[in-house]
Amino acid sequence: MRTVRVDLGDRSYPIQIGTQLLKSVGDTCKHHGLTGRCAVITDAHVAPLYAAGIMTSLSQAGCQPVLLTLPWGETAKSLKQVQACYDSLAKHRLERGSFVVALGGGVVGDLAGFVAATYLRGLPFVQIPTTLLSQVDSSVGGKVGVNLKAGKNLVGAFHQPRLVVCDLDTLNSLPDREYGSGLAEVIKYGIIADARFFGGLERDISALLKKEPKVLASVIARCCEIKAEVVAQDETESGRRALLNFGHTIGHALEAISQYGQFLHGEAISLGQVAAADLSHRLLAMPARDQVRIRELFEQAGLPVRYPLSKAMKKRLVEATALDKKVKEGEVQFVLSDRIGHAQWGCRVLKEDLDEVLEEYFPTT
Amino acid sequence: MRTVRVDLGDRSYPIQIGTQLLKSVGDTCKHHGLTGRCAVITDAHVAPLYAAGIMTSLSQAGCQPVLLTLPWGETAKSLKQVQACYDSLAKHRLERGSFVVALGGGVVGDLAGFVAATYLRGLPFVQIPTTLLSQVDSSVGGKVGVNLKAGKNLVGAFHQPRLVVCDLDTLNSLPDREYGSGLAEVIKYGIIADARFFGGLERDISALLKKEPKVLASVIARCCEIKAEVVAQDETESGRRALLNFGHTIGHALEAISQYGQFLHGEAISLGQVAAADLSHRLLAMPARDQVRIRELFEQAGLPVRYPLSKAMKKRLVEATALDKKVKEGEVQFVLSDRIGHAQWGCRVLKEDLDEVLEEYFPTT
Repeated sequence: MRTVRVDLGDRSYPIQIGTQLLKSVGDTCKHHGLTGRCAVITDAHVAPLYAAGIMTSLSQAGCQPVLLTLPWGETAKSLKQVQACYDSLAKHRLERGSFVVALGGGVVGDLAGFVAATYLRGLPFVQIPTTLLSQVDSSVGGKVGVNLKAGKNLVGAFHQPRLVVCDLDTLNSLPDREYGSGLAEVIKYGIIADARFFGGLERDISALLKKEPKVLASVIARCCEIKAEVVAQDETESGRRALLNFGHTIGHALEAISQYGQFLHGEAISLGQVAAADLSHRLLAMPARDQVRIRELFEQAGLPVRYPLSKAMKKRLVEATALDKKVKEGEVQFVLSDRIGHAQWGCRVLKEDLDEVLEEYFPTT
Repeated sequence: MRTVRVDLGDRSYPIQIGTQLLKSVGDTCKHHGLTGRCAVITDAHVAPLYAAGIMTSLSQAGCQPVLLTLPWGETAKSLKQVQACYDSLAKHRLERGSFVVALGGGVVGDLAGFVAATYLRGLPFVQIPTTLLSQVDSSVGGKVGVNLKAGKNLVGAFHQPRLVVCDLDTLNSLPDREYGSGLAEVIKYGIIADARFFGGLERDISALLKKEPKVLASVIARCCEIKAEVVAQDETESGRRALLNFGHTIGHALEAISQYGQFLHGEAISLGQVAAADLSHRLLAMPARDQVRIRELFEQAGLPVRYPLSKAMKKRLVEATALDKKVKEGEVQFVLSDRIGHAQWGCRVLKEDLDEVLEEYFPTT
């Protein structure tokens, strides 16, 4: 087992990465001071696979767990489901000192984390991410929240977990498309922070697609390290943390206009990153070679790099981009990269450039 | 104008107390670095009185305010209204750097504060409390939140305002019953922290009931000072801040079972404090004389000190008390006072004592 530590003063926490970790989750919680009543929040896909094991492990460690199973999918990341969770926590009398366990992918983690952040003004919570995407991204850093009709993650909080347990075994039950979606975030870490890591991904992409355990463990640990380092420097996204949003401005907008159904998050940000690489070439003089390498790595990972849209959808994409949280005084600000391994935030993008790039990667049908 | 400073490191903020402060609110916001788009959240009672003035003042200072008017009353402090606010903020494109103004009593402040705490993971907000209760209590300290059917304030966050503006003129439009309700919190500060202040209240209660401006300004400032001091020592209620809950365990339960309609908050905590004083006499040997002085001061302030309940309601009161946030491992913990001016938290109360005291102050009809 590897452990990556997220260093945030009295909110520091460990990320455990390894195999066969689920069966000892109860003891691990106990070891971290978490006992008593707890709510395991999961979804309808993950529950049949892992919920019984987690409930047994928690019970054996002396906890009194209750299981809350959400519907599967991004549409469950809603205030309606938040309300249902609150009502369950009240019914089962969770109290201060109780804790919440998020068992599932990013949707479950974000929603359960928001519930934990706001129930009784904040309960401790444990993340058990079961997708590649959530293991390398959403379970690290304390951003929690839900979607509104008007946009993704418009409601949320910063609430750090007490502990993250990444069990690599859970990735074997993951559909290929979802696994691939996680690779989009993996590649992002290379682009924004580590050229050597990016080169490694180019070399190991076949092994990674085969979920070769050694490669996987080392890749996940490196992604968590990079994210942990960025978050430690800027917990509440006033600066450097914005780097993690490379490709996300357009990606989020794409998810919003497609009602969170059509694209997986990784697919949306794959398109967003390829577009952001083009903006980077235009505005920050990213070398053409880097732009090509980026597009090719996404392609090799089986991710989309171009997606035709109807005229109506295109118009909505432009509008949704302007609703992004990173908008400041009406001007869309992007994270762009001047070369692989290095990025900067707060880059102002003119409407003409944005329109041209959107037309390139989302050609009007 | 008096200014009380709440000292919380980089989350410190001033509370301004005085007359004729509303008309310069826009400039005051600007002076504190708040400009651009903002949402003024108020309710149907307060809007006709003060909203136009606030909107004008903000516009003249160069802000772009939008007005959101909630229904009046505690039932508006719901997730349904929170959702409506989120949707409005998205519609009016509030962005990072925008801010929220809470104009009204505790309900508006708690709800608007929760919206501000969670929209885009946190926007700055300004409190303009227009009731005595909110001026001395809910606008100070950063506790924000909403009710669930299962209980009051079960959902919430800690989110400090940037600025609090207490305009004493607004108290002239306050119905007597609501003004009296605020006095219940005022008296609480005397009981938990300042015997001399409590003596002053006994002496000045007539002047206070007449809203004599000089007495009022000095009383509000002292309450804010006491609360600011407690909050500064313990922002997130891990210890000393719990003192502020004197009388609230039973008070909140009473509000919960009566569907937030029958009692004003101050009325509920008046009953709760009189009961807590009795528990204090039994368990911490509070002098009988102090217990009598406490009951008499609430009576002189026109507040209820005994309230008969039906057998069914009584049963629900006992159950609701056990759902209180201060419950730890199934045992109800109270804040009690060993003498006027001094209190302690985490006092374990046996079921027999609680039952006896509840029967004394809530006799079964």
